[in-house]
Amino acid sequence: MSSSEIDRLIQLLSKLPGLGPRSARRAALHLIKRRESLLTPLADAMHEAAVAIKTCSVCGNLDTKDPCAICADPRRDQALICVIEEVGDLWALERTGSFKGLYHVLGGTLSALEGIGPDDLNVAGLINRARRPEVTEVILAMNATVEGQTTAHYITDRLADCDVTVSRLAHGVPVGGELDYLDDGTLTAALRSRRPF
Amino acid sequence: MSSSEIDRLIQLLSKLPGLGPRSARRAALHLIKRRESLLTPLADAMHEAAVAIKTCSVCGNLDTKDPCAICADPRRDQALICVIEEVGDLWALERTGSFKGLYHVLGGTLSALEGIGPDDLNVAGLINRARRPEVTEVILAMNATVEGQTTAHYITDRLADCDVTVSRLAHGVPVGGELDYLDDGTLTAALRSRRPF
Repeated sequence: MSSSEIDRLIQLLSKLPGLGPRSARRAALHLIKRRESLLTPLADAMHEAAVAIKTCSVCGNLDTKDPCAICADPRRDQALICVIEEVGDLWALERTGSFKGLYHVLGGTLSALEGIGPDDLNVAGLINRARRPEVTEVILAMNATVEGQTTAHYITDRLADCDVTVSRLAHGVPVGGELDYLDDGTLTAALRSRRPF
Repeated sequence: MSSSEIDRLIQLLSKLPGLGPRSARRAALHLIKRRESLLTPLADAMHEAAVAIKTCSVCGNLDTKDPCAICADPRRDQALICVIEEVGDLWALERTGSFKGLYHVLGGTLSALEGIGPDDLNVAGLINRARRPEVTEVILAMNATVEGQTTAHYITDRLADCDVTVSRLAHGVPVGGELDYLDDGTLTAALRSRRPF
């Protein structure tokens, strides 16, 4: 139907999350029409990212430096480690600007169905970091899914003989949320964890 | 929040149709995690497309050759020219495999609101092609929108002194469509254009 260059571009674009075959065709046309302003700059940005981005050997974050900018920043609180599933969760927490400690990216969750065990996640690295004398608290910030919470329980067990407090994110009513639209589990959790006004 | 390389990649990805800031972040992470299998091949495919893809000087199609593979194919019916708004429409018609003539890409529609006049579209090229003795029919396959149909009327007027039949796509019930869900305009058109069973 069209040249093999366009077909290959469409085929690769359709592998991006959120783009199906139809939207990949639209994206390819959009790119080819904007050769100077978008296609070439995006190709360059991808090449640069492919060359420059590394995984931080300390925390698993993605950055051009290893250790990453967060691990290397002496102003971050070295006593706090926040454990998250993926780098996207780290970005979400950083956008809030309300956490000044360090991170640890697990790289997923335990999943019997998908055959992901403890050795497939960066758990050993976390235990090693938690043993350091300056670390006092490990915050488990896994997703509030069955897999996330299973993983959180497993890590709590593994951290039992480290001298750290283990905490987790609060469950409750999302800011801006309406009670009538919340599920029973969230509402029950919010009621149980009620605080003085 | 993350390195400037990642930020730039996210910022450029968010300019693709169908990707907002959140899905652009997801796409960037997806790409960086699949460096060998997706990120580098996609960057290469984009560079190749940026260098190789040209606009066909005859019909406005996108291809690595000029004239494009369709215009250069002697087996295509040189008597038929199908006029479409965009290259995506040409791809859609080619996927059906039911048209064996040539195409002419207008590059948009007339739009008083957006200030797009006849000189911004490839109308002059169409008139020149329609004057050729071998051309007998021009099929107007613009979208069934107000802008598309306005453009179709304008082109019909401009083709008045060319020796060609001007036709348009049929309106009617889409294949697989249910009458109860169709708009009145489509149903009226389908009734008016009814055919012997």
